[in-house]
Amino acid sequence: MIEQVNAVWIVIAAAMVLFMEGGFSLLEAGLVRTKNAVNVTMKIFVDLTVGALAFWAVGFGLMFGDDAFGWVGTTLFGTPERISLSVPLPSAAFVLFQIGFAVACVSIISGAVAERMNFKAYIVTVLLVCAIVYPLSGHWIWHSDGWLAKLGMKDFAGSAAIHALGGFAALAIAKRLGPRKGRFNSDGSVNVFAPSNIPLASAGAFILWFGWFAFNAGSTLDASNKALASIALNTMLSGAAGGASALFVTMKKYGKADPSMVINGVLSGLVAITAGCAFVSQWSAVLIGLVSGVIVVYATLLVDALKIDDPVGAVAVHGFNGVFGTLAVGLFDSAQGLLTTGHLSLFMTQLLGALTVIVWGFVSGALIAHVCANTVGLRATEREEEEGLDMAYHGIPAYNELERFADLPGGLYDFEETTGIRVAPLNKKNAVG
Amino acid sequence: MIEQVNAVWIVIAAAMVLFMEGGFSLLEAGLVRTKNAVNVTMKIFVDLTVGALAFWAVGFGLMFGDDAFGWVGTTLFGTPERISLSVPLPSAAFVLFQIGFAVACVSIISGAVAERMNFKAYIVTVLLVCAIVYPLSGHWIWHSDGWLAKLGMKDFAGSAAIHALGGFAALAIAKRLGPRKGRFNSDGSVNVFAPSNIPLASAGAFILWFGWFAFNAGSTLDASNKALASIALNTMLSGAAGGASALFVTMKKYGKADPSMVINGVLSGLVAITAGCAFVSQWSAVLIGLVSGVIVVYATLLVDALKIDDPVGAVAVHGFNGVFGTLAVGLFDSAQGLLTTGHLSLFMTQLLGALTVIVWGFVSGALIAHVCANTVGLRATEREEEEGLDMAYHGIPAYNELERFADLPGGLYDFEETTGIRVAPLNKKNAVG
Amino acid sequence: MIEQVNAVWIVIAAAMVLFMEGGFSLLEAGLVRTKNAVNVTMKIFVDLTVGALAFWAVGFGLMFGDDAFGWVGTTLFGTPERISLSVPLPSAAFVLFQIGFAVACVSIISGAVAERMNFKAYIVTVLLVCAIVYPLSGHWIWHSDGWLAKLGMKDFAGSAAIHALGGFAALAIAKRLGPRKGRFNSDGSVNVFAPSNIPLASAGAFILWFGWFAFNAGSTLDASNKALASIALNTMLSGAAGGASALFVTMKKYGKADPSMVINGVLSGLVAITAGCAFVSQWSAVLIGLVSGVIVVYATLLVDALKIDDPVGAVAVHGFNGVFGTLAVGLFDSAQGLLTTGHLSLFMTQLLGALTVIVWGFVSGALIAHVCANTVGLRATEREEEEGLDMAYHGIPAYNELERFADLPGGLYDFEETTGIRVAPLNKKNAVG
Repeated sequence: MIEQVNAVWIVIAAAMVLFMEGGFSLLEAGLVRTKNAVNVTMKIFVDLTVGALAFWAVGFGLMFGDDAFGWVGTTLFGTPERISLSVPLPSAAFVLFQIGFAVACVSIISGAVAERMNFKAYIVTVLLVCAIVYPLSGHWIWHSDGWLAKLGMKDFAGSAAIHALGGFAALAIAKRLGPRKGRFNSDGSVNVFAPSNIPLASAGAFILWFGWFAFNAGSTLDASNKALASIALNTMLSGAAGGASALFVTMKKYGKADPSMVINGVLSGLVAITAGCAFVSQWSAVLIGLVSGVIVVYATLLVDALKIDDPVGAVAVHGFNGVFGTLAVGLFDSAQGLLTTGHLSLFMTQLLGALTVIVWGFVSGALIAHVCANTVGLRATEREEEEGLDMAYHGIPAYNELERFADLPGGLYDFEETTGIRVAPLNKKNAVG
Repeated sequence: MIEQVNAVWIVIAAAMVLFMEGGFSLLEAGLVRTKNAVNVTMKIFVDLTVGALAFWAVGFGLMFGDDAFGWVGTTLFGTPERISLSVPLPSAAFVLFQIGFAVACVSIISGAVAERMNFKAYIVTVLLVCAIVYPLSGHWIWHSDGWLAKLGMKDFAGSAAIHALGGFAALAIAKRLGPRKGRFNSDGSVNVFAPSNIPLASAGAFILWFGWFAFNAGSTLDASNKALASIALNTMLSGAAGGASALFVTMKKYGKADPSMVINGVLSGLVAITAGCAFVSQWSAVLIGLVSGVIVVYATLLVDALKIDDPVGAVAVHGFNGVFGTLAVGLFDSAQGLLTTGHLSLFMTQLLGALTVIVWGFVSGALIAHVCANTVGLRATEREEEEGLDMAYHGIPAYNELERFADLPGGLYDFEETTGIRVAPLNKKNAVG
Repeated sequence: MIEQVNAVWIVIAAAMVLFMEGGFSLLEAGLVRTKNAVNVTMKIFVDLTVGALAFWAVGFGLMFGDDAFGWVGTTLFGTPERISLSVPLPSAAFVLFQIGFAVACVSIISGAVAERMNFKAYIVTVLLVCAIVYPLSGHWIWHSDGWLAKLGMKDFAGSAAIHALGGFAALAIAKRLGPRKGRFNSDGSVNVFAPSNIPLASAGAFILWFGWFAFNAGSTLDASNKALASIALNTMLSGAAGGASALFVTMKKYGKADPSMVINGVLSGLVAITAGCAFVSQWSAVLIGLVSGVIVVYATLLVDALKIDDPVGAVAVHGFNGVFGTLAVGLFDSAQGLLTTGHLSLFMTQLLGALTVIVWGFVSGALIAHVCANTVGLRATEREEEEGLDMAYHGIPAYNELERFADLPGGLYDFEETTGIRVAPLNKKNAVG
């Protein structure tokens, strides 16, 4: 009976986690410029199709197969459903849930490389991250024989294993890619490209928040886990607190409640509580959230100052707050936290784990970028970037309602010329839509 | 075992209820004018962040703490998870679910005050509603020692406690705020500001409908409740009937199937069945829905006739149909309804409860508006309103795809001039997106 | 206890299936031209309101009432909750879930007839499909005494009963309707009308994918079903494989990763696994998905070659891949499949079932179109089609942000003139949104 309750619970949770990809898609499509909104969306489809299959066929075995030396799994390739679980849960539910996690990790990267990456290079990145990079560090942290797990590292739902890893891999690739044309000025100042669609980006954030309840509470894998409901409440409180502090910080600092930053504040609170959601009190969750909302504001400025271009703030949200969340367990863990109990050892383990993930993420990202640069090409051509990746790689702009303006002076684009697709002639009569 | 099934059930239900905020956000962003679409979205973020924390820290205790005189709770401040429940459910799941309810209540207000309220005043409103106003009447209706509960008032999932309360508080604040500039003409006629984005508004309605199944069926708090599935089916039937009657009424009345009204018809059916979903038959649910879809059409005209400006129809949907739903229990309750059994007493209790909520909501709303008017300022300045609250309070327009038109004659806005944010220069070459 | 777990499971699953309507709405609104985006959305509201009530009151009895001759149900009209189920599940949960299925079936049709169907004709279509057409073939396949069920046809969650039926009914109606003006040229070439909003269409696809987990795994109706989790995993794998193959086929064939085709590839994988999700292995699911993604590309070209205009590709996705999915059970069924076990009989039964559904769907669709053509009128007038169905039937355009351009030379539309709704005057000063 409990196994079937768990099957229902984890199948629903997995569906919610996979639905977060819709959240990533809308968030990114809303935050980038219009001319690249289709491309970021299609990259999420690559995550959910190519990435999911790559993790299922290869990555799952590296992550959850029989351990070798604490470093790597060696079985279950192509047969993930043969895993034996220590909780009463059908293996297929576990596999589905883990696919959702792998896909989430690589989707973090998609935002940071937006608006200038070669589409084929992104496909290669997805293959390598889902098949190899994420599964390896995942093995260290989450396989019962993984070396970090054996040291006692606590990362309940993946502040380190998913978010920090994705964030720092993203940082390395974004650094190698270089900034979007016109992003940084020679005098050191930064140009802001205004987000194209704030309501859409917000919709993405709401979907991500919805899925996050399953991301964290689903990581119980077992409805018998007494912490299940507290995990969900902690997730709510930290997300709310992250959004609230980003709201007030930007109102104070800029005189405006900055929408992108409030969205990223909420996500930061969610990222930061992901490691500790099962281990900290509710007031700690609020505090972690409040801090994360401040971190994201300043981490975004820091990434800018490093002249690394991250169009959606993925490094600040997932990288920096993933690390903060990992360390926060060491500080606030109810049983072993430095601030709550005075014990230092868990904090040191968390620090080691976080550093490991930072290094592994950054090095892997740099290697992936190097491989792409020397094979399919890492960066879109200058012409593709100017024209927009939507037309370059997908032959279609995100929003065609503007076709109605096609006959205004300076007609916006000649659809047929750019794409070779023959479009019904427009005249003023039928140009209304 | 049942406790853990309930934990899963209510955590998922709470996530769905909280996801309804995404529905409110899209609905409102789609129904208001483009220049205020970011602002309504950000107000929903205020609900979910500031409002959620305020309810968690303060409001929960007033609502569910130990009763004093049937009027107010007196314990659990800052420690809502210490509540003892009479159902086998982890307290954290209950707290999370109730946060979703509090946030939904205040989100009702956000729509009615759209397009002209001072953003800081909205933050104050959220604090007061979530910390005090909603919890107090919630205590009367839903705490076992509340005075309306003791009289036998039936409000299963909150037609009165949430919807009518939010709707009539919204009415009072909207009245005090005054109409948007240009809304009413001196000859008594009404100008319609066309909604900016119907597909987005519809997406919001679908999300709200999805969440409503959890809103109503989740209010069982217990999977052992035999009515759980009937509640969900009643919810569906009433929503469908509300939409159907609004569809046919507007086709008949205006010769067009009016999208905003059909959306609001669905929502009206959902609001109206919220009190009675556990107490009425399926045919009664259909009938309640059909009536609610007619009510919303005429209540909208009535609010207009009172020269109160409610940009999204929140008063008609939540206020009027919240009251109707509360009374409908008195009419259709399977055990005590006036029409179903001939007994009058439940109907009179429901009438008293509805009147109480109307008065409490209206007076509280008026007081909140008064407090705001005398502190942070209730209404946006004329300049802010003309420019749009998006630029005024958030420094960014909702949709930037139009940047491509920046160099057309009469360039639409000078982003840098208005916001101080330096934007990469556009020329015709890279203006496509 | 199991009954209450099932109640929770199926209520949540039904909510997710019904939420798929939001997916259909966004998908279609994004794929059609702007001037018809409201109309496709409103058609989905017709499905969810009028269609749901029609199925509940009439169709449910025809489908699940006591059988007569293997062809039709004869009881439960207006009282669907009186059904006795063979699984421990409250009948109301079953009714709600089945409403979701009926509504999904008719929503398939809404896409294929987009941009030129008379709105009243669509309402008639919804009534007839939900009350009669879908329930009848549903009875044959899913009622334990249905003639196809008795022959041993296997259609777990409806590749045939829902998708193929909807797809071929759509084909017949689209054929009778004729193509949109300007779609086919006299020289035999095809004009592509560019989709209006790709991010919105993608959001629709993500919602559909999310709901599909419940569509398939919820069809267990019982958490005790050991296959529940495998069904969900198969659903994921086939959807991912369908999207991946459409991605690579279009990159190879057109040099671009075509967004509409990738979206439709994912949906094709989901459609094709719907019949067999409970009966095939995970590798078979991947294979089925891969094939479906190829089928959709060529089926779309075939429909074009037949000069039938299907604006969103519904026939290729649901019709062709519904049939393929039905046959795929005959090929890959673990116990009786032709390729897996060498037995031919199941495949022949599936072939008969598929042919039956194709014929029934096509004939019913043709009859419905005939009825409409001779009563309310099947097709929008030429003027309505040119102007766009949004203004013609709903009096409002999808996106009003463009109001800001109203005073540019050649002002786009005169809202008041077309609709009779008086709009606040715009001048350049307040035209920013």
